[in-house]
Amino acid sequence: MTHQGTVEIIDVSARDGLQNESQLFSTEEKLELIGHALDAGAKRLEVASFAHPKYVPQMADAEAVIEGLPNRDDVEYIGLVMNARGLDRALKTKLDEVGLVCVATDSFAMKNQNQTRDQSVEMAYELIKRAKSEGLNANVTIGASFGCPFEGEVSAEAVVKMAVRLAEAGPREISLADTIGVANPWQVKALISALRAELPSIPLRGHFHNTRNTGLANAAAAVESGVGSLDVSIGGIGGCPFAPAATGNVPSEDLVYMLERGGFDTGMNLDRLIQASQWLTKKMNKDLPGMLGRAGGFPKPDNKLDPAAA
Amino acid sequence: MTHQGTVEIIDVSARDGLQNESQLFSTEEKLELIGHALDAGAKRLEVASFAHPKYVPQMADAEAVIEGLPNRDDVEYIGLVMNARGLDRALKTKLDEVGLVCVATDSFAMKNQNQTRDQSVEMAYELIKRAKSEGLNANVTIGASFGCPFEGEVSAEAVVKMAVRLAEAGPREISLADTIGVANPWQVKALISALRAELPSIPLRGHFHNTRNTGLANAAAAVESGVGSLDVSIGGIGGCPFAPAATGNVPSEDLVYMLERGGFDTGMNLDRLIQASQWLTKKMNKDLPGMLGRAGGFPKPDNKLDPAAA
Repeated sequence: MTHQGTVEIIDVSARDGLQNESQLFSTEEKLELIGHALDAGAKRLEVASFAHPKYVPQMADAEAVIEGLPNRDDVEYIGLVMNARGLDRALKTKLDEVGLVCVATDSFAMKNQNQTRDQSVEMAYELIKRAKSEGLNANVTIGASFGCPFEGEVSAEAVVKMAVRLAEAGPREISLADTIGVANPWQVKALISALRAELPSIPLRGHFHNTRNTGLANAAAAVESGVGSLDVSIGGIGGCPFAPAATGNVPSEDLVYMLERGGFDTGMNLDRLIQASQWLTKKMNKDLPGMLGRAGGFPKPDNKLDPAAA
Repeated sequence: MTHQGTVEIIDVSARDGLQNESQLFSTEEKLELIGHALDAGAKRLEVASFAHPKYVPQMADAEAVIEGLPNRDDVEYIGLVMNARGLDRALKTKLDEVGLVCVATDSFAMKNQNQTRDQSVEMAYELIKRAKSEGLNANVTIGASFGCPFEGEVSAEAVVKMAVRLAEAGPREISLADTIGVANPWQVKALISALRAELPSIPLRGHFHNTRNTGLANAAAAVESGVGSLDVSIGGIGGCPFAPAATGNVPSEDLVYMLERGGFDTGMNLDRLIQASQWLTKKMNKDLPGMLGRAGGFPKPDNKLDPAAA
């Protein structure tokens, strides 16, 4: 394929990936998982969330995980921050960046962080400002941008309005999250187009779940719309507590296969990702949603037959 | 979403879906499966293949299945034909249409039907002509259009050349098949664009396998390129004997979800497809690749909370 440009792959295995898995990983195991992503070429990783351990037990050792991260000048580590207390905690670590979160509907915002939608935007706005003033990079995610488990349809106009307000705080990028995996490619294109009309140049990031088998189609649509960064988890681990039998994030190895074969440069090593997915399959002792670990990459012409001889 | 047009859904559950499943279905069970697709609104179905039972045991009762099909004026039934003997058999049935097959590489054509690529094209050409002269509709599939398990890369130029020759025989449509599930959306668009330059108006059909998680992305790309028909199987059953752990066709319920949510009219009933997938999951006693059967459709706003009261 002709070269089509570069897509940044953000590994969220140790955060969103693990967050909703029932199998608890030790700090060492999380660092091993992160190590696999680094070995495969990840340069930006969401490694922890500063959620209350009561609500998200898997994230109880956030500080210990961050403390154990390899010091790499060419790598940026992100921690997810839900509130001011979380930012306080993040500021005491060696993280490079925090991710703020707001939610596109009142019902989901209430459930997720006990705020209305607008309150969640204002909190994210303030925390972006504060993080930046303290020398941390900050990005922000708009959760449930494509559909809400409680309200159903989400208005693109409302999401754009949120993004415009958030952009005033100067985040590194705005991430549109299909938290419950309901989006379709044309909705992705329509929302990004509406957003671009108001915010022509802010960097965009896509966070898709493959719950309804549309994750890679949505990622492709996002890339075609100019989204520069996409979230992935090794093996596609993760999910959403509100969606029964949900699969998790877009699998790293499957997305990198699609993009690299399509002419995009991701900087990731597919063979290493496949090995990482196979390692994680063994470790979790279950089939993971990612398919490349089973199917392998594009076939190599080793088995070429000579038709004249057949 | 704005209305974006119509996409024809061709159910291939009882042919490509079952063909590579190890669990043998009785004639009655196949008719029950076909009945589910009909109940969900399928109007064109590939119901059997006239392959030799030695090679494809699941298709041994092709004539009996066809004999048992409900007589429906609004439905068209297709049988897959691999050679002249297969067409002889098809002509003795009440089928509306036959599907011919040729293969885009010599190595795969040899393995599949003991012919070179060019021989497979000429055979399909002759059989289209003959089927039409006998009053049957005929379509043709170019297998391995996007990649070959033996040779790897497949030249788009070669596929276009095959299509140009096949078009001269007057098939109802030409189907581009990603037999081993290696395509990516940009390759799909590039191939269709190259083909359209030579054949501006012939109807096109897409046959995608989800082996590497790109099936729905490829289907979306095909639809955006003007492909009017897509093959599906309930639950995504099926696979390919050459791809270990391959998943099957694009799952009916997942594709219909994506297209209908994206503003396309498929004529299919999603709730019925989900029920069909759940029925098939029980019957086959294993998780099927289709995701809607587990995740359900787009959330209904039943659970809307009153934020003021929360």
